[in-house]
Amino acid sequence: MSWDAWLAEQRESRERAGLQRTLRPRAADEQVVDLASNDYLGFGTHPDVQRAASAAALSWGAGSGASRLVTGTTTLHAELEAEIADFTGRDSALVMSTGYHANLSAVTALADRDTLVVSDAHVHASLIDAARLSRATVEVVPHNEVDAVRAALAGAGGRRAIVLTESVYSVLGDAAPLSALAEVCADHGALLLVDEAHGLGVVGDGGRGLVAALDEAPQVVMTATLSKSLGAMGGAVLGSAALIDHLVNRARPFIFDTALAPAPAAGALAALRGLRDRPELPDVIHRRAAQLADRLGVARAAGAVLSVPMPSPQVALTAQAAARDAGVRVGCFRPPSVPDGVARLRITTQAGIGDDDWARAVEVLAGVVEQHRGEP
Amino acid sequence: MSWDAWLAEQRESRERAGLQRTLRPRAADEQVVDLASNDYLGFGTHPDVQRAASAAALSWGAGSGASRLVTGTTTLHAELEAEIADFTGRDSALVMSTGYHANLSAVTALADRDTLVVSDAHVHASLIDAARLSRATVEVVPHNEVDAVRAALAGAGGRRAIVLTESVYSVLGDAAPLSALAEVCADHGALLLVDEAHGLGVVGDGGRGLVAALDEAPQVVMTATLSKSLGAMGGAVLGSAALIDHLVNRARPFIFDTALAPAPAAGALAALRGLRDRPELPDVIHRRAAQLADRLGVARAAGAVLSVPMPSPQVALTAQAAARDAGVRVGCFRPPSVPDGVARLRITTQAGIGDDDWARAVEVLAGVVEQHRGEP
Repeated sequence: MSWDAWLAEQRESRERAGLQRTLRPRAADEQVVDLASNDYLGFGTHPDVQRAASAAALSWGAGSGASRLVTGTTTLHAELEAEIADFTGRDSALVMSTGYHANLSAVTALADRDTLVVSDAHVHASLIDAARLSRATVEVVPHNEVDAVRAALAGAGGRRAIVLTESVYSVLGDAAPLSALAEVCADHGALLLVDEAHGLGVVGDGGRGLVAALDEAPQVVMTATLSKSLGAMGGAVLGSAALIDHLVNRARPFIFDTALAPAPAAGALAALRGLRDRPELPDVIHRRAAQLADRLGVARAAGAVLSVPMPSPQVALTAQAAARDAGVRVGCFRPPSVPDGVARLRITTQAGIGDDDWARAVEVLAGVVEQHRGEP
Repeated sequence: MSWDAWLAEQRESRERAGLQRTLRPRAADEQVVDLASNDYLGFGTHPDVQRAASAAALSWGAGSGASRLVTGTTTLHAELEAEIADFTGRDSALVMSTGYHANLSAVTALADRDTLVVSDAHVHASLIDAARLSRATVEVVPHNEVDAVRAALAGAGGRRAIVLTESVYSVLGDAAPLSALAEVCADHGALLLVDEAHGLGVVGDGGRGLVAALDEAPQVVMTATLSKSLGAMGGAVLGSAALIDHLVNRARPFIFDTALAPAPAAGALAALRGLRDRPELPDVIHRRAAQLADRLGVARAAGAVLSVPMPSPQVALTAQAAARDAGVRVGCFRPPSVPDGVARLRITTQAGIGDDDWARAVEVLAGVVEQHRGEP
């Protein structure tokens, strides 16, 4: 089949399934209450954060010029790494261009053909891709089932093993049984990799995430993003100094990538300091998330994400459009972006918007969900 | 083996081979002539580019808030995509967070187990990782040997096939025989993927890259970065509208990644406009690169990168340090960052620095290379 024919056939098959996606650019001055973004604390548009990002572009330049090992590492990157490691209680951190790079770097630098990767069925696409790229043997276990993880590790047969989990899951919004997983990993000498993309800034003491609360966790690798609660862009891997040294030397997605640009690095650093100064901020998320969950009649969430199942991808789109027409933006997740194949509205609780906007959004969403939940 | 013991063993083995790497943060006000960065035209610190990046952080925020398909696509992204497609003569463009994402997205969305990927032996790590992640059958062919590509495609046996090349190679600095490759691909109905990371802004008419000069190239996928001659951060895939639509729907490294932050997007756009307004700028690179190549006694380069082989990784490090002590920063590439295993100085010609600094740097490098070339 020719490439043109193949591309056309692929598109027709998406359209038949109601899964065709299109990009819709938004304007800077758009009037909408945004409950779709992952900027849960509103730091992306906080004046201190915007000013820090803006100033960094003037003092450092628009880019970092090269990869981290060549000349892309600035004192700004080093400062950010020291402060995010300190905040989350880790020894060291390594900042990357994206969270996808962080997960790819951590897994591919640690795992190879002689490694067993035990992966929760709901982990993010970047961890799935990372495990595949590493060429390790991958065993996918049912979501949040600690016994299945134990059984998989018992079968490792002397191979080095890594368990992949998220602290708060991206789409369904539930939390992992982290202490139990850490214990099982310790029993088997396995490494526990915890993606805190949706945990940092949202859960744990003052938004430190869930890894920080583990009693003893020498064998934990934490990954995080700078693009969600920190409102900027980028990712990080956190862990022991030996781990970070290993990644600097062996993680291809880190080595062969231009360093994170100064503006988002400075923005993330300013947001991190803002979070440190206002440890009560994540509580706003939890109060609002509980209120909204109760109002919509769905289960309360561990973090900021509320997941509302819809009868079909088409109805999910219609519901999303109805909310948008009423001035509220929510996410619409359809296959293949959902781990269980169920289309859903994905509503992110935001601490950064005013009480009036929040109250109005809750009423809009209650109406929309009520109206579309039952539709086939 | 325990994870701690494995990490320690890995480090010892790097140290024995003289291949241990460490990050060295640089300061904003550092006094050095930088011939290591890939910001070949100096746009990263051009006032117009810095101001555009700085202003974008204030008007849009420090980040884009979410993935491109959720709410991360701004009119700024759309503008950048339209202008970079227009500049390079492509139908459409899709901007990503990094060049690594661009290559991973293009290859993994197009290739699967039923695809043959024919890869030049010298392509960038991101293309190697992309091919591996795609699960396609990968055939690596000797560097720049068109006959080997033809033979590989002849054996495709009806599978869809993609040929991977760079327009100007990243480490050795040589160019691909692009017209011949395009012809072979057309003969076999294969797609030609050309990474213009080091071509855009450097080669071709007014810095349009080498793909733009191909007579008829409907079956070409071009990838590029916004972090090199455009001085910012990010990557792009360029091609037909059908290709870009396919990537929006199927490229996991694009779909599952927060959108490029506004500041680097605006910086890249300002640099692109600067390049369009000054089509003579790339000529400065070529004049200087030829002068330096002649002075160092190495082959002239196709683009901005001069590659100077060194007797060993250790000598390459010593030579790099000697240049640095004399106020000139150059890159030092050691295994595994070199396709042929030969350690080398990697010197990037810069159009953005003044004539005096350039002349001084040439003399410094001539002395350093003379002194270290022969050392065992």
